[in-house]
Amino acid sequence: MRVLGIDCGSEHTGYGVVELDPSGKLHCIALGAIHATARAPIADRLNKIFQGLQTVIERDRPEEVAIEDVFFAVNVKSALKLGHVRGVAMLAASCAGLAVAEYAPLSIKSAVVGYGRAHKEQVQHMITRLLNLAVPPDSPDAADALAIAICHLHTSASLRRQQAAASR
Amino acid sequence: MRVLGIDCGSEHTGYGVVELDPSGKLHCIALGAIHATARAPIADRLNKIFQGLQTVIERDRPEEVAIEDVFFAVNVKSALKLGHVRGVAMLAASCAGLAVAEYAPLSIKSAVVGYGRAHKEQVQHMITRLLNLAVPPDSPDAADALAIAICHLHTSASLRRQQAAASR
Repeated sequence: MRVLGIDCGSEHTGYGVVELDPSGKLHCIALGAIHATARAPIADRLNKIFQGLQTVIERDRPEEVAIEDVFFAVNVKSALKLGHVRGVAMLAASCAGLAVAEYAPLSIKSAVVGYGRAHKEQVQHMITRLLNLAVPPDSPDAADALAIAICHLHTSASLRRQQAAASR
Repeated sequence: MRVLGIDCGSEHTGYGVVELDPSGKLHCIALGAIHATARAPIADRLNKIFQGLQTVIERDRPEEVAIEDVFFAVNVKSALKLGHVRGVAMLAASCAGLAVAEYAPLSIKSAVVGYGRAHKEQVQHMITRLLNLAVPPDSPDAADALAIAICHLHTSASLRRQQAAASR
């Protein structure tokens, strides 16, 4: 199973594609970030993010998409800005016929570090180990996106195990 | 000049296409609302809104797009929800190469009723008169979208007059 994790941000949107093989091993297929200059009109920035995500989906063929759920935002203005990017990210998934799962920040950190209040550095360290990367991801946004993808893969795998146990 | 006004909402997104002819008369080209059922996954609802707006843009060929600017929202959660739809609406404009203008609710009401704190009914009444409609728009979302388009046409026309006067 191959999942695209997206870390939405109005200036930097990180993405990470992770595959879980039948033996339970995780593989990093792609990672990166789409940068939208703050000076460009909002609509053009959203278009750049949308096209960037469409390119990743076409190239790396994920089967599902996962994004971070947002409960808290500093204020209404920042929630609105983040909402623009989330809307466009969910649309990119929907246009490709992919389902979107949302995870709370606490669940994402728990899935990766085993501790919901882990620091950014701990997440990056565990991402590097779990995916057997030679070096930690350059971009913190890409690292967060990989964490979101891993959270979804873990959650789906444990759900499937539960379903298999229940049907026995 | 032909403008598409969009009134973004997570359940009902109104649209209205208005043309200003050389004699200064306004014409209603199209109006309506895109309804997204609250039960469908968010990504599917955003896809429906996106496709609906793309259809309007292809059919009615507006030259510019106008949406309402948002400063206040009830809370962070509703700002995020509204942000999703605004992001998708701006993307639909950008994908068609159309510029997006944003107007504060006060400016929109002032442009249509001449009074920033006008009630919804006053806006609907003035829209009906300004566009010479046989009956008021059924959908309040479509009426708001027409008001946004008229606000942009008035603002652009007065800007052009100022520029013409300055260049004399």
